[in-house]
Amino acid sequence: MTLNRQWLLAARPDGTIGPKNFTYAETDAPEIGAPENGAEEVLVKNLMLSFDPTQRNWMVDRPGYLPPVEIGAPMRAGSVSQVIASNHPDFAAGELVQTTGCWQDYAIVTPGKGPTGVNKLPPGVSPEMMLSILGITGMTAYFGLLDIGMPKAGETVLVSGAAGATGSIVGQIAKLKGCRVVGIAGGEEKCKWLMEEAGFDAVIDYKTEDVCAQIARHCPDKWDIFFDNVGGDTLEAALNHINLYGRVVLCGAISTYNATKPEPGPNNLMTLVTNRGRMQGFIILDFLPRAMEAIEHLMGWVASGDIVYKVDMAEGFENIPTTIQRLYTGQNFGKQLLKIADPE
Amino acid sequence: MTLNRQWLLAARPDGTIGPKNFTYAETDAPEIGAPENGAEEVLVKNLMLSFDPTQRNWMVDRPGYLPPVEIGAPMRAGSVSQVIASNHPDFAAGELVQTTGCWQDYAIVTPGKGPTGVNKLPPGVSPEMMLSILGITGMTAYFGLLDIGMPKAGETVLVSGAAGATGSIVGQIAKLKGCRVVGIAGGEEKCKWLMEEAGFDAVIDYKTEDVCAQIARHCPDKWDIFFDNVGGDTLEAALNHINLYGRVVLCGAISTYNATKPEPGPNNLMTLVTNRGRMQGFIILDFLPRAMEAIEHLMGWVASGDIVYKVDMAEGFENIPTTIQRLYTGQNFGKQLLKIADPE
Repeated sequence: MTLNRQWLLAARPDGTIGPKNFTYAETDAPEIGAPENGAEEVLVKNLMLSFDPTQRNWMVDRPGYLPPVEIGAPMRAGSVSQVIASNHPDFAAGELVQTTGCWQDYAIVTPGKGPTGVNKLPPGVSPEMMLSILGITGMTAYFGLLDIGMPKAGETVLVSGAAGATGSIVGQIAKLKGCRVVGIAGGEEKCKWLMEEAGFDAVIDYKTEDVCAQIARHCPDKWDIFFDNVGGDTLEAALNHINLYGRVVLCGAISTYNATKPEPGPNNLMTLVTNRGRMQGFIILDFLPRAMEAIEHLMGWVASGDIVYKVDMAEGFENIPTTIQRLYTGQNFGKQLLKIADPE
Repeated sequence: MTLNRQWLLAARPDGTIGPKNFTYAETDAPEIGAPENGAEEVLVKNLMLSFDPTQRNWMVDRPGYLPPVEIGAPMRAGSVSQVIASNHPDFAAGELVQTTGCWQDYAIVTPGKGPTGVNKLPPGVSPEMMLSILGITGMTAYFGLLDIGMPKAGETVLVSGAAGATGSIVGQIAKLKGCRVVGIAGGEEKCKWLMEEAGFDAVIDYKTEDVCAQIARHCPDKWDIFFDNVGGDTLEAALNHINLYGRVVLCGAISTYNATKPEPGPNNLMTLVTNRGRMQGFIILDFLPRAMEAIEHLMGWVASGDIVYKVDMAEGFENIPTTIQRLYTGQNFGKQLLKIADPE
């Protein structure tokens, strides 16, 4: 039998998540059913895992856009994986796929099922590219900005979590659409990268600057789109500077996820009335039928050098539970990934 | 000279507004310029005043969708008024018009200018009808529900401030569009009227019932549109029961207007993300170019008996400052108006 290492959900979140929420386990690698039983299953070996802020939401036992991960089950996570065996005519051993392999060495996945299905990597695309710029976070930037935010040339776009895997791509797409882009990020290194590499017009360091005052300074004509990954005080500060017909793209609220009780919301929602504003949430899974549209554009922009992306690569199966912590403390710089194994 | 009584803004709001914010004054009635000077002015005598929750916003010295009323100026208010003299070819002495006459006996108004311009009453329309169902509050219901909320037959519409001048019309239009309608109002008399006269499907009495639990009970499939006039805790309770693709029509937040410091917002805005929800504000002034569309529909529905409306009529110029207080305490039942004089 083949060893299958796993990190299982052991305790639901209460405040910050980390190693205390997970238990290490070892089992035998699963086997796919015989083809004559009609199950079109694929056995994969996980090579690289994606870490995403929304994973904490999956750990909570309340109705969400996906069912909660059960206690004792491997933690749900996106992955790039290699096909080991397949009952499905479209997949063959050795191929690399993007799927939801979870925190374990081996998984059985079913094409067309699960949050993202099973998708072959396009030619020339590396696992880290597939899980970052072309993955959920890159597509979130693409569809969130373009379909929910609806930018027009000449508008000002404010982005929180600007150095993150989604925020940094949002800002660069907005620049390509002719917008002025102001980012909010934490720390000198991230702010410098946004200005020098990602081409933002201005950056606010929330760790050392007064965010509300700096938004006023860098958005003298207010903002037309606020792409919010952070929520909480950042959202409240931003709403004070909404332009007429401004749009808030509600992507996430990472500042609030680890709170042990619900945090108060912004005290200035009436600015949405006065300014005819719109605040809209979305879930990227709804856009996956259009994934190829985003992937083609994003690959083109990476190839032309119009968009840069950054990966924060961890290594080692044993480090998975500490790696997820990095998302909620702002430690990661770029898309957080973890490499388990090389392809065979 | 003709006596012109006025109530002037004396002090900006600090908590609840009422008589302490206004000063009584007497001046001479103004006179319009000579026609040869080219000023197309109209001198009107105010017969009836409209009281609207948003008036408190006009008293605050901060940028808004209208300039703040200046200290020492007559308080801004919509009115039905009678033309006394006119330099404008479209208006003649004796005609009744809807305009922004402010808290005074006489005003000079200019057709095409001011928040609502100067509009003749359609044939057969009484002053109280013009200022309620056909006025700002009725049009707010019409455009807010139909253009911002976008109801579809079979959907559930939740309305706060349901017995108010806007909320009660929202619910009845929603019924006409084939929706199930649940109202939130305060007190047995208002709740009874909503069920028996206005045809709501269910009503929640926020004074005696747990609003969150009752929304769950009366919206077993959650709500698709929440038309919110109240804000605060009511909005937070409602957001717990938003359906997929639900829309919050942010009309106002009367529960928060008299707070001396900003009240925290809803702690569950992430429900907008999970449910792909949209929260959108609007200002009815933007829709006034389409006023005739709303007026024609609303007049038709009143004539056919499909919509009922309720007016809470005060009387007497001296009672103006106490009458505005009624809006923020839930005392008014139906559209709050005040009659100053009969037409001559």
